[in-house]
Amino acid sequence: MVQCPDRIIASIDTGVDDALALAYLLGSTDECELGGVIASYGNVDANTAYANTCAVLDLFGRADIPVFLGSEHPSWADAFIPDAGCAQFHGDDGLGNTRLAGSGALADGACVPGDDMSVDVPDEVVSVGGYLAGDVHAHPALGACSRVNRSQSVDHPQSAMPTALASGGKRRCSVDAADGIEYLIEQVREFGRDVTVLATGPLTDVDAAITRAPDIASKLRLVMMGGTLTQPGNCWDAVAETNIIQDPEAANRVFHSGADITMVGLDVTHQCLLPQSAADRWRATGTKRGRFLADLADFSIKANLEADPALFSGGMPLHDPLAAAVALDSSLVDCFDLALRAETNTGDFNGVRGRTTGDPVGLVNHSMPHVHVALGVDSGRFLDEFVERMAEVCR
Amino acid sequence: MVQCPDRIIASIDTGVDDALALAYLLGSTDECELGGVIASYGNVDANTAYANTCAVLDLFGRADIPVFLGSEHPSWADAFIPDAGCAQFHGDDGLGNTRLAGSGALADGACVPGDDMSVDVPDEVVSVGGYLAGDVHAHPALGACSRVNRSQSVDHPQSAMPTALASGGKRRCSVDAADGIEYLIEQVREFGRDVTVLATGPLTDVDAAITRAPDIASKLRLVMMGGTLTQPGNCWDAVAETNIIQDPEAANRVFHSGADITMVGLDVTHQCLLPQSAADRWRATGTKRGRFLADLADFSIKANLEADPALFSGGMPLHDPLAAAVALDSSLVDCFDLALRAETNTGDFNGVRGRTTGDPVGLVNHSMPHVHVALGVDSGRFLDEFVERMAEVCR
Repeated sequence: MVQCPDRIIASIDTGVDDALALAYLLGSTDECELGGVIASYGNVDANTAYANTCAVLDLFGRADIPVFLGSEHPSWADAFIPDAGCAQFHGDDGLGNTRLAGSGALADGACVPGDDMSVDVPDEVVSVGGYLAGDVHAHPALGACSRVNRSQSVDHPQSAMPTALASGGKRRCSVDAADGIEYLIEQVREFGRDVTVLATGPLTDVDAAITRAPDIASKLRLVMMGGTLTQPGNCWDAVAETNIIQDPEAANRVFHSGADITMVGLDVTHQCLLPQSAADRWRATGTKRGRFLADLADFSIKANLEADPALFSGGMPLHDPLAAAVALDSSLVDCFDLALRAETNTGDFNGVRGRTTGDPVGLVNHSMPHVHVALGVDSGRFLDEFVERMAEVCR
Repeated sequence: MVQCPDRIIASIDTGVDDALALAYLLGSTDECELGGVIASYGNVDANTAYANTCAVLDLFGRADIPVFLGSEHPSWADAFIPDAGCAQFHGDDGLGNTRLAGSGALADGACVPGDDMSVDVPDEVVSVGGYLAGDVHAHPALGACSRVNRSQSVDHPQSAMPTALASGGKRRCSVDAADGIEYLIEQVREFGRDVTVLATGPLTDVDAAITRAPDIASKLRLVMMGGTLTQPGNCWDAVAETNIIQDPEAANRVFHSGADITMVGLDVTHQCLLPQSAADRWRATGTKRGRFLADLADFSIKANLEADPALFSGGMPLHDPLAAAVALDSSLVDCFDLALRAETNTGDFNGVRGRTTGDPVGLVNHSMPHVHVALGVDSGRFLDEFVERMAEVCR
């Protein structure tokens, strides 16, 4: 019998595939209730993730779902800038340049390539898409440099942000939580494993919640998109995976926290490719929703094909949608359980920063927490159900 | 029902755990026939591996088993020197300093630390334990430098080598094969998958056989110790595994050859630790064989404990013996099947040289050959049977 969680809380960095995952969840109201969303940095900066999340919920008629502004930067840095790779795969606005959330979120502080970020943030540690500013791999996305200065763009949201942001960091909702982290904590305390936390971005939010309230770890059911155990990574080094490289320290703490974790990583998401025919079907509905979903898919299918024709000739990898589907139906994947760690350093005796790998101590200390790592997936069943449900949600 | 192969051919680089694996196979005559052994570079240089193999077979009364001198260096280099790590875990003689093969194999050309190897081999590419000579990780083992000059130490074996080496590279046997590679080819052609090739060292020999006779690939059943899919590596970088780093190019070709391959890597061998009590039991037999096996185990238990107390407080990892046991009884392990590659370069878009990882093309091209990667092991059953059988073979 398929287990159906009563409730899902999403920690999300709304780019293209996060938006598809959101729409999928909104089309699954018979199976689950999306209780709330915490929008954090990752594919885009946190403000853009927030705006995108609100816009997607609005489009699908669910403005009632509370949205919180989550982490604005990784645990190891003081600030965050999306990198060029994010824009390549998610568009400048994170939504395949559909501008669903309007253009305001991107209007302030357009970046002049070559700007010296140290001028803006002399005392801050800045992550550029997971890499320390100054690292050879830290390529800021155009339009994103203003995010460096938190006092301008994050601590005091600009008018381009939805106005609800100004009222305690949450939007149109009757929830009393002080912030997204507090909301996550309260939800886990109230619902235990009857709520599933679905994390489709960096694990910074989840880590922050466990750090603030260690008692929730043993009650927390987490399904996360991120990592790769048996496949190469999708970062520059072909070792790390993009969600984990954003905040390996947070991921490593979460993996060792004792939470019930299912990792949906590249091992399985690279087996679930959305073909062009699906986008065409959604577009053929003729609705605004259908056009939006098709535009997202078109953008990502093209970006992935250009990046790696050998892997993605069949379509875009459905990273976050698969994690959402697994949160609703764990029978979609076959898991291998092991003690897991995220490497936090690179070099002799350290592995490679951002790589998810077995924690060898777990091989001899069997009381260490184990993570369920999805290695097999019924991709045919998932794709059929996903495309069908999305076609329905377009109407 | 447990499958019992009729025949095993071992490609081996006889260090401590290879010797234990050999003794284990010799104690399993009811289940298999050890048809022949090809001794190659790896834990030690090829000459030492040859001498050690002969000495172990002699000790256990099986001088009738043919032994061939196999590859003397990896496919990517012209020469090979064991590194300090080999000596650390296998002793200067490869057999825990038991000197079972006499001291002759090590007598010629004692190395003076600081010798400039480029003086001896101006035009050669030299591997030092898998690392290019000159690499920061290339630390030659003391006593091994003479191996650089192949014309002195390998092409013309010294008197310290068993005399049979002079007669076509094979020893006391009635086999007609020109060399070890040819023998391997002939065995696979004759027996198909009724012979299992057990490789406990670098895959250079197996690769050479497939390269010379591509027709054998589809007939070849290979059980190999090497690699790591879900655990850190045991090389300097904590990414690569020592057998694979010796010759990643060869491993990568073998993985893609279409052979039926079972990989017994650190994923499972680090779960199978031989405790001190086993060594004590073997020693208590009072026989020369028992003392030898106990000396091997004592050396390795101590070396591993000193290297990593967190992982090896329970004993030495039984890398090669587990692979030998799996060759006899595949039900000892649970395997995950995937297209596998060995990375041959390090850096952007390349991963890390020597790492075994999924070949992502295999996720979308299902006709790619799959490797059976052992991820689970019945360590209790294996250890019980191993310790018991070794106690019997001591008598």
